Amino acid sequence: MPSPVEFYFDFSSPYGYIGSEKIDALAAKYSREVTWRPIMLGVVFKTTGSAPLPSIPLKGPYSARDIARTTKFHGIEYRPPSIFPISTVSPCRAFYWLDTRDAKRTKGLARALYRAYFVENVDISEAENTIAVCEKFGLKANEIRAALADQTIKDRLRSEIDKAIALGVFGSPYIIIDGEPFWGSDRLDQIDRWLQTGGW
Amino acid sequence: MPSPVEFYFDFSSPYGYIGSEKIDALAAKYSREVTWRPIMLGVVFKTTGSAPLPSIPLKGPYSARDIARTTKFHGIEYRPPSIFPISTVSPCRAFYWLDTRDAKRTKGLARALYRAYFVENVDISEAENTIAVCEKFGLKANEIRAALADQTIKDRLRSEIDKAIALGVFGSPYIIIDGEPFWGSDRLDQIDRWLQTGGW
Repeated sequence: MPSPVEFYFDFSSPYGYIGSEKIDALAAKYSREVTWRPIMLGVVFKTTGSAPLPSIPLKGPYSARDIARTTKFHGIEYRPPSIFPISTVSPCRAFYWLDTRDAKRTKGLARALYRAYFVENVDISEAENTIAVCEKFGLKANEIRAALADQTIKDRLRSEIDKAIALGVFGSPYIIIDGEPFWGSDRLDQIDRWLQTGGW
Repeated sequence: MPSPVEFYFDFSSPYGYIGSEKIDALAAKYSREVTWRPIMLGVVFKTTGSAPLPSIPLKGPYSARDIARTTKFHGIEYRPPSIFPISTVSPCRAFYWLDTRDAKRTKGLARALYRAYFVENVDISEAENTIAVCEKFGLKANEIRAALADQTIKDRLRSEIDKAIALGVFGSPYIIIDGEPFWGSDRLDQIDRWLQTGGW
């Protein structure tokens, strides 16, 4: 059985959100599983010297337009959040906590968090908002609240980000297939052909 | 008659090269002309605070792989140049000189310069190499040599770059269709749909 496709993303990344809506169906066409791994790009940017899109002259205004157009192109629901970008430490910790308890539900939770932020304009950087999304998803609020302050979960998140940086992950989404890296939701067409042909 | 598609590119940009091999055929499907405008990204980067790809940690090594894979994906001939990136002042001046003499041949010259650099590994930052490519293309070496030092041509290039920055151009290729900007060779699919539907 082939190894899973590795899907790295940041909960504050619109292109990561686009990728999250597409990657599993794409991989399933070729009978491949997908492993989701949220990371925090702010930490990665300390290595690359990069910066959040909205802060970059010319590129920032362009990206707002490009995100709106690209979501429409893919038929994905999207409303620009009032606050962007945000810190994603709370949603990341909730994700990795659930990964230790009921790993099969992590993708569902990640989708709920992404849609809260990019469709319902919920600021998931606020711990209580992340907890509310988790509760609506069927998890217990007090368990999530404890998880967000749990040192084991903090260490797990830090370790996942370190592993991602060691693999060369510098953006979102960043997808690795049998060692081959693909950056950006605009590489879905190449991923499709790569999965079909096993490289070219 | 609809206005031409505006195609901005840097002669040192592999993604610009990819765009140059595709844009005219794509526009022609919808009976649209394309105006080509070489610019110098190094000047633009002073505004955006960006840097050439190879100098960026993680992103640099990734981009080398991505360029090789993306050219194969599109079936475009490509050999990584020994020196990359380069200054493109000479090819740009040769282009704008020809634009004042025989504008219909500028695209042919641009393609010859791009292929010299990205297929034949000719360092077109060297004035004499650009002159040699122009000569092979059928232009007179002494005329090009004079053009490269001509103040009118220098001013024209500077003015084209200033106009591009004023329009928001920050990368290569950068394509504007009826005011709508598209950055990157990975937006060709969106350009196709945009030309077909007139926006969506």
